[in-house]
Amino acid sequence: MQIKNKHQINHRISTDCVIFGFDFNQLRVLLIERQPVEGVPQMMALPGDLIFEEENLDMAAGRVLKELTGLNDIFLEQVGAFGDPNRVNKPNDKKWLQAVRQDPDARVITVAYYSLVNMNDYEPQPSSFAKSASWILVDDIKELAFDHFEIFQAALKKLKDKINMQPIGFNLLPEKFTFSQLHKLYESILGNELDKRNFRRKMLKLNMVESLDEKQEGVPHKPSQYFKFNEENYLKLLEKGFNNFGF
Amino acid sequence: MQIKNKHQINHRISTDCVIFGFDFNQLRVLLIERQPVEGVPQMMALPGDLIFEEENLDMAAGRVLKELTGLNDIFLEQVGAFGDPNRVNKPNDKKWLQAVRQDPDARVITVAYYSLVNMNDYEPQPSSFAKSASWILVDDIKELAFDHFEIFQAALKKLKDKINMQPIGFNLLPEKFTFSQLHKLYESILGNELDKRNFRRKMLKLNMVESLDEKQEGVPHKPSQYFKFNEENYLKLLEKGFNNFGF
Repeated sequence: MQIKNKHQINHRISTDCVIFGFDFNQLRVLLIERQPVEGVPQMMALPGDLIFEEENLDMAAGRVLKELTGLNDIFLEQVGAFGDPNRVNKPNDKKWLQAVRQDPDARVITVAYYSLVNMNDYEPQPSSFAKSASWILVDDIKELAFDHFEIFQAALKKLKDKINMQPIGFNLLPEKFTFSQLHKLYESILGNELDKRNFRRKMLKLNMVESLDEKQEGVPHKPSQYFKFNEENYLKLLEKGFNNFGF
Repeated sequence: MQIKNKHQINHRISTDCVIFGFDFNQLRVLLIERQPVEGVPQMMALPGDLIFEEENLDMAAGRVLKELTGLNDIFLEQVGAFGDPNRVNKPNDKKWLQAVRQDPDARVITVAYYSLVNMNDYEPQPSSFAKSASWILVDDIKELAFDHFEIFQAALKKLKDKINMQPIGFNLLPEKFTFSQLHKLYESILGNELDKRNFRRKMLKLNMVESLDEKQEGVPHKPSQYFKFNEENYLKLLEKGFNNFGF
């Protein structure tokens, strides 16, 4: 009987994770700086690595995310596969791979995953080849290593599609929140301004949130009313989606 | 300078295509029978094969589909990657691979694509290792080779999501069609009955279709009115989707 090395690496397949967080004001993404390699300018990257032969893709994504950033038990959804033959061939990326990978010239196809988490619950702890791991403002991301900018944009597109199809926010906002916080969450994901009054009307019509008999205290402006999600309706909406046709 | 074999095969990555067709009554999927291997019972499969090293994934999917079924120039969208370590290890699948593949024990990850086409425009022509290629009723598909049943179901799910988010039908129905045909298209994709009157009301409200001053002729029942898609509104809906929020 052949005894397999438990962690035989598959040098052709990697996984990358796009973890979105919300700081109650703006949307952020968890990025790493990779271990420095001489002559390669530092560039941020998505947490990602090669998979093991015995893992399925979902398991690999969870393991890699944990190894590089410390984030554990995250519900990850697949974005898709990215397999351009030149996706890791930019000169600086190539140099970096030559310094760290066993088979730096192999064509590597990556399977990307994404998630949306409450940033306050997750303090990133870089390890493995991640020198740092931090929450970067989506608006500040202009380029990334490899084809990670393309992957990041594809994940953002998925998130925007999702927000149009099902409720979002339960895991992202505190138990009680102001309408303004909910509004900012939606604006930051969609990347554009939303008319406040319309937004409020739509949210209340969906019965997704309900007002609490409680207002902000100790704020320098007129205190806002607190709201909470209506769990029952939220779950119902999650199940049937916002589908317009009502099929 | 290294001259690369133009068609170097990547033995770790394959692509599979789920091509849906509509026969004006029911939804079908394009399946192949593979070249027979002694001792392996025949089982239908999705058209799929290993990719070439110089291809990106989209190109590979188009090429493989054409090679096996003759279908060309199909707009393919990615379903996702399927990478269970045991996805090709059912005994009969393994035997088939041992007979036809160079490296039958390699772990192969597949990237699946799907499309929805007008069956009448595409007469499948099997070639390569496909012994036959034919349009099979979705309702008749109970099992497939490898993990193809799982892939088929994931593609069907994507199609159902899509029908809730954007108009469908322009490439699937004749230029003039009856409401009953449109209704059947939606029912066959969603896999359940839709109240006829509600469906009609919703479609007309969306301004997706408009009635023609023309009725069926020579039919054994009361002739139905013909409709056509309102191209301008159809395209507008395609762009903005049916998003309920109107963001």
